[in-house]
Amino acid sequence: MTQNSKIFLENAPIGVFDSGIGGLTVLKALQRHFPEESYIYLGDTARLPYGTKSPETVARYATSLAQELINYHVKAIVIACNTASTHGLSAVKALADDIPVIGMIEPASLAASKATKNKHIAVMATFGTIKSGAYTKSLLNFVPDCKISPIACQMLVALAEEGWVDGTIPRSIIHQYLDPIFNQENAPDTIILGCTHFPVFEHLLRDILGMSVTFINSGEAASFHLSEHLKEASQKKIGGVKFFVTDDPLRFAENAIKFYDETLKPEDVTLIDIKG
Amino acid sequence: MTQNSKIFLENAPIGVFDSGIGGLTVLKALQRHFPEESYIYLGDTARLPYGTKSPETVARYATSLAQELINYHVKAIVIACNTASTHGLSAVKALADDIPVIGMIEPASLAASKATKNKHIAVMATFGTIKSGAYTKSLLNFVPDCKISPIACQMLVALAEEGWVDGTIPRSIIHQYLDPIFNQENAPDTIILGCTHFPVFEHLLRDILGMSVTFINSGEAASFHLSEHLKEASQKKIGGVKFFVTDDPLRFAENAIKFYDETLKPEDVTLIDIKG
Repeated sequence: MTQNSKIFLENAPIGVFDSGIGGLTVLKALQRHFPEESYIYLGDTARLPYGTKSPETVARYATSLAQELINYHVKAIVIACNTASTHGLSAVKALADDIPVIGMIEPASLAASKATKNKHIAVMATFGTIKSGAYTKSLLNFVPDCKISPIACQMLVALAEEGWVDGTIPRSIIHQYLDPIFNQENAPDTIILGCTHFPVFEHLLRDILGMSVTFINSGEAASFHLSEHLKEASQKKIGGVKFFVTDDPLRFAENAIKFYDETLKPEDVTLIDIKG
Repeated sequence: MTQNSKIFLENAPIGVFDSGIGGLTVLKALQRHFPEESYIYLGDTARLPYGTKSPETVARYATSLAQELINYHVKAIVIACNTASTHGLSAVKALADDIPVIGMIEPASLAASKATKNKHIAVMATFGTIKSGAYTKSLLNFVPDCKISPIACQMLVALAEEGWVDGTIPRSIIHQYLDPIFNQENAPDTIILGCTHFPVFEHLLRDILGMSVTFINSGEAASFHLSEHLKEASQKKIGGVKFFVTDDPLRFAENAIKFYDETLKPEDVTLIDIKG
């Protein structure tokens, strides 16, 4: 590697992609940990949701998004989507060659396996992620005798998209999903928030379950994982994010507040076409 | 038209298509009104949801589904999906030539315009249907001085898909959406259930709002509209439905109970590939 290309890499952006808008919670975590870095966020809003599509289709979409990020000379790729991580990680790794690729499943599973004391971990995720068994497989890799309680929490996705993240309705829905698991002996002491939408409920979950439960936020776990790959971190503060979407930039910009705590200016979001 | 082709038409099936599974509420209404007819139901489960896609894409999908039904020699086409009706009706009509095509918007709007006494109609629908303004435009066509209260009820879609159609959670969510509209003077006396998922909440809505409100079920309204076109109704009882989907027949068969009151046998549902 020449001196020049190394300098280029140091200051290159980190690429983050998702099927839509939920990955903004991951971007937020990354920015919290690495504020000096610059980012490219790519949301495949034209083809969302991925959860209802076949593994082959999701893998194809994921590689097409990764290729787009590679075209922007990113120095790392974060797959900020559980479904795309489940079905697309190995294909994206093969495509990305020596660029580090970080998915959602393994970092969160590793963090949970380190956090649990009683070896009982709950996974809150979408129906598709739960059905894939990806977290169960990954957790058993780290803690073979772990008890795992998967909880498909589809309604929480709709709640997050509606912006209803506090009050009696989300509270009742969370109780409906969690009570059967947590009103038992030896309940989980660790919960993986296995959907990028779910960090918006973290405060409410902490309030309901108390401080004895550890929450694993995928974005935080991915940040930790990324830090090991950022040997060549940006030497000067660059910061900033370029947002690209495959459909309706205005809607994306308006809805960003729900997952990113900021409304984006429509001119910050660029519409692009992705083939594949 | 020859005598032969007329006989053929009388006993031909009625084609019903939807982006997925919600259209089963429309099929159920049609079967209630015309039990002697046979049906083909086509659910585009590989490409759902339509609500987040561009009008051009939805129109293209709708015509590809309609073409598939035409290939089965259906004698009428019912577009059992509000989004596909909004963006695809005219393209499907052009394609279908002399086969009657019935969408969701106009029949429900006509029924609501006949039902309202105080000329205040609420439309409960998805974000996409509300944003399109299709019901507002159609209702004002029938009752130019009508007051219309559009209510985007995205959470009800998720509730219906989760099968949570009764109890405190759906009740609170319905209150959250409807109270601002119905706790006012001169509240709507008529509600259009402008999403095929919503008839599953009709009993709960009646319980909350009381008997003074008239509910317009799109499937019922479409049945009334269809009856005018079924001059050549089936002369002998044929009955029965063939189900076709573009992804995972098993999941469709299992989930049918939520919208169709029956679990289908997997062998009743055939996977097909739709181009376009």
